[in-house]
Amino acid sequence: MTIYDFPIGPYPARVRIALAEKNLQAQVSFVLVDLRKGQHKQTEFLKLNYSDTVPVLELDDGTLIAECTAITEYLDALDGNPILTGKTPREKGLIHMMNKRAEIELLDAISMYFHHATPGLGPEVETYQNPEWGFRQRDKALKGMGYFNDIFSRHHFVAGETFSMADITVIAGMIFAELVKLPVPPEYQALAAWYESMTQRPSVRDRVAMSRPR
Amino acid sequence: MTIYDFPIGPYPARVRIALAEKNLQAQVSFVLVDLRKGQHKQTEFLKLNYSDTVPVLELDDGTLIAECTAITEYLDALDGNPILTGKTPREKGLIHMMNKRAEIELLDAISMYFHHATPGLGPEVETYQNPEWGFRQRDKALKGMGYFNDIFSRHHFVAGETFSMADITVIAGMIFAELVKLPVPPEYQALAAWYESMTQRPSVRDRVAMSRPR
Repeated sequence: MTIYDFPIGPYPARVRIALAEKNLQAQVSFVLVDLRKGQHKQTEFLKLNYSDTVPVLELDDGTLIAECTAITEYLDALDGNPILTGKTPREKGLIHMMNKRAEIELLDAISMYFHHATPGLGPEVETYQNPEWGFRQRDKALKGMGYFNDIFSRHHFVAGETFSMADITVIAGMIFAELVKLPVPPEYQALAAWYESMTQRPSVRDRVAMSRPR
Repeated sequence: MTIYDFPIGPYPARVRIALAEKNLQAQVSFVLVDLRKGQHKQTEFLKLNYSDTVPVLELDDGTLIAECTAITEYLDALDGNPILTGKTPREKGLIHMMNKRAEIELLDAISMYFHHATPGLGPEVETYQNPEWGFRQRDKALKGMGYFNDIFSRHHFVAGETFSMADITVIAGMIFAELVKLPVPPEYQALAAWYESMTQRPSVRDRVAMSRPR
C-alpha cells in the first residue's frame, strides 16, 4: 500500500495513528505531498483525490481511497477485528457519531481557522480566505473543546469503553490546535489531562512529537 | 426506535431512505423537530444532539445516535447484512470515501449556500450569515455536480456495483438542490438521468415527492 500525505499534518496523523494501532506500518510506503508548495492543488494530485486533501491511500491494485474515515474503515477491516470502528451496530453508530462530531466541532473548525484567518499555507496556496468565517470557526472549536472536556470529566474515551477512531479524531484536533497556537482554555482540565494521557500511547507519541512546533 | 427529524429535510431523507432500503420503517416512530421554528437550536433538543442537527436516532435503551452516516452504519449493521455500508474492507473504504465526498462537494455545500446566502430558515433562526461564504459554497456544489456527472457517465452507482450509502448522500444533495432552486446545469445530462432513475426507486420516490416544492 502507498499513502500520499504530509507527515506533520493533523489529518495524515489520523491515518498514521490508525496504522500504528493496527500494526500495519511496515506494509505501507509513504509519498510526500508538500502542502506548503500547494502540491495537493495541482493537477497530478487531483487525479488521486478530487477534494485536494491528504492523506490518500493507494492499494496495490491501484484503488484509491481518500478521506481519513474511509481509510480507517478500510485498514480496520483488513484483519476482521475492527477495534477502531466498532464491532456491534451500537458501537459502530456511536463511534461514527463521535468521529463526525470531533470533525465538525473541533478538527475541521480549527482547519478552517488555519486556512481562513491565519496565513495558513502561505499566500501562494491560500488563494481565497474568508477571515470572518475563520474566526467564527475558531470560536466554534473553543466551544467544542468545552464539549469534549465535559465528556472526559466522565469518561476515559470519546465513544464507549475503549480507544477508537473517534479518539484519534479528537487527538488530531488537539495536534492542530497546537500547530495553530490555539491553547486549551485553562478551565478545561479534563481535556488537557486526557490529551496528556493519549500522548503516552505509542501510536500517538511519535505523531505529536513530529507535529509540535520546534 | 425513535427518530427526531424534519420530514422534508434533505439530511432526514438520508436516514429515511436507508430505513426503507433496510425495510425497518415499521420499527421507528418519528418526532417532529420544526427547523423553521428553530427547535433544533433550543436547549431541549441540544441535549439530544450537541451539533443542533437532525436527524437523531434514539434507541429503546435511551442511546442517542446523531449524524446520518452514524445512523446508517447502525441501521445497516442490525441484520448482519450491510448492503449500504459495505461488506469487504475495499467496499467499506470506497463507500465511506464517496459518501464523504458527496457531503463535502455537494450536500454540505448546498446546505451552506442555503443557510448563508439565501433567507434559509428565516431571520429568527439564521442569526449569523456569511453570504460570501454561502455563494462560494454554491459554486463548489455546481462544480461538484460536474464531478458526479463524470462518474455517472461511466457508472450506475457512486461507489461500486450496487446502491449504497454514498448514492443516498448524492440523492440528498439533489433533493437539497431542488429545494433551493439550484438546477443541474444542462450539460450534466448523466447526473440528471441518474437522478431520474433513482427517483424510480421505491425508497427514494416518496422522499423526493415530499421534498419537492409545491
